[in-house]
Amino acid sequence: MKKSTLKIDLQSIQTDKRVLGRALSLIENEDAAASPWYESLYKSTGKARIWGFTGAPGAGKSSLINVLIKEIRNNLNLSVAILAIDPSSPYTGGAILGDRTRMYESGNDEKVFIRSSASRGKLGGLSSKTPEMIHVLDAAGFDIIIVETVGVGQGELDIMRIADVITVVLSPHNGDSLQTLKAGIIEVADIFALNKSDLSGINNLEKDLKFGLSLGSSLISENPEIIKTSTVSTEGVADLLSKLNKKSEQLSSNGEQVRRRHAALSFEFDYLARDMTYQILEDLQDLKDLKKNLNQKIKLREVSPREASSELLTAFKSKLKLI
Amino acid sequence: MKKSTLKIDLQSIQTDKRVLGRALSLIENEDAAASPWYESLYKSTGKARIWGFTGAPGAGKSSLINVLIKEIRNNLNLSVAILAIDPSSPYTGGAILGDRTRMYESGNDEKVFIRSSASRGKLGGLSSKTPEMIHVLDAAGFDIIIVETVGVGQGELDIMRIADVITVVLSPHNGDSLQTLKAGIIEVADIFALNKSDLSGINNLEKDLKFGLSLGSSLISENPEIIKTSTVSTEGVADLLSKLNKKSEQLSSNGEQVRRRHAALSFEFDYLARDMTYQILEDLQDLKDLKKNLNQKIKLREVSPREASSELLTAFKSKLKLI
Repeated sequence: MKKSTLKIDLQSIQTDKRVLGRALSLIENEDAAASPWYESLYKSTGKARIWGFTGAPGAGKSSLINVLIKEIRNNLNLSVAILAIDPSSPYTGGAILGDRTRMYESGNDEKVFIRSSASRGKLGGLSSKTPEMIHVLDAAGFDIIIVETVGVGQGELDIMRIADVITVVLSPHNGDSLQTLKAGIIEVADIFALNKSDLSGINNLEKDLKFGLSLGSSLISENPEIIKTSTVSTEGVADLLSKLNKKSEQLSSNGEQVRRRHAALSFEFDYLARDMTYQILEDLQDLKDLKKNLNQKIKLREVSPREASSELLTAFKSKLKLI
Repeated sequence: MKKSTLKIDLQSIQTDKRVLGRALSLIENEDAAASPWYESLYKSTGKARIWGFTGAPGAGKSSLINVLIKEIRNNLNLSVAILAIDPSSPYTGGAILGDRTRMYESGNDEKVFIRSSASRGKLGGLSSKTPEMIHVLDAAGFDIIIVETVGVGQGELDIMRIADVITVVLSPHNGDSLQTLKAGIIEVADIFALNKSDLSGINNLEKDLKFGLSLGSSLISENPEIIKTSTVSTEGVADLLSKLNKKSEQLSSNGEQVRRRHAALSFEFDYLARDMTYQILEDLQDLKDLKKNLNQKIKLREVSPREASSELLTAFKSKLKLI
């Protein structure tokens, strides 16, 4: 398979999944976002509904998304792409045990595309690759893009900025009822899916959640929906889909969707610009030497990392003349 | 209480907890790390053992640390500080429901200091405040500093770089046995505390963990310890403390502790320098205008965030002359 000969453009990523997969891999593994094809694809973005799913490990996000895809495909004539993000390990940059393979049994459905990605963040947190992969899926013409993140850390919350509608998946016996709320997750949710509704703790979970919600004052979503779901009986899944659609339409009609998307794009811009600006400093040989020198002093506890940064910056400034 | 008249120096933070608390607040809320007192404190760091505790919400980290403190105080003549980090919410910058108050009942013990912090990261992930607060606690002379983070996201893993010894707390019925492993947490652990060992799923959890460990090839810790703990019966807590001490001594004698600390300090330096460098660009009025303009184009899908960053950087470079 001569991968390198696949021509990537708007038409080919919309019609050939191999090309789409190749485009996503290029974005993920190289700096292909600087390519002309990426820039041209970007102009065709902004059409898909983007639904984020997050929650603690073990809440059943993948299984819930799995039945949701079936519900979408059986009842709506819409295509759907799933991007599942595994937080990267700082040591190997990858996930050890993946369970993505058990997702979505009807793999022959042309209108469904599933991709998982181990997002690699540079200095803590969000990888710029995730929004760029979403832009590519958006340009590829999917009606719905579902982004799934595991964990409840800052990086994962950042990824959720990209979504129009955010569903937080909770489940009983998961230890994540009240304790997850303090991780800030309550404030990003438009919808709470109380999953594994067949388990006995489901009513306590709902009670705890409602109590938590009653305490929050500055919620991003004023009236988050609470839906009990089961991937076994599929209870609540049709309701979940209907609420997701309703929220999408609401956000679209009251201007909130545009506001959220613009905020996410500004965030992405800022992140990239910050990265590139630092590169200028790192490319200067004598500053590289100074940095090495300062690192030594930090290790000897002669100068703090903050003081060292100031010194490095002063040296950088002295090398620059504004013209 | 005239807080502002408290003089912060090495002697006062070592002897007066009010001064220590004030110093930590200044670091956390303002850019006090640029102060002369911080710089002078930094020279006295590097002595404390730093133990990191992480794991999914609900695994019982706080309770386990609570009994561990008692074990330390009853059996070793060592002082201990606890820094508990709540991941910040991107929307309000704080935790909604805190349960820190129930920690450590013997609050009168002069050799114990507990502090919680809602770390605020700028662009996704680690806050520079956390390492700086740890430096202050280190200078304050505590023998042991315990850093507790909730969640398993990238930002939390970054915080764990600071620790000499990392304990990952898992518990049965928490949904985090196999699923947490894929979040990269397996690779950072020196010790696994299988908590709530009185629960029935504890043996399955151990089996799953050992299976997971058998798959990993590039573990940071070659032979992580596995200890079953219970905060109810205090089973395993003495063993946990003994293993923590043993690991600390091992790492200290084979040079690994120094290597880890240096890596963490370099990371902190890089993070701060990156932040400050971008500030130069943001302080230039015409680049601020260009950025605003580019943000508009991004929103209109005329130019991608990546292309916009390139344009911004080109403009920045054209304003600079290397001298």
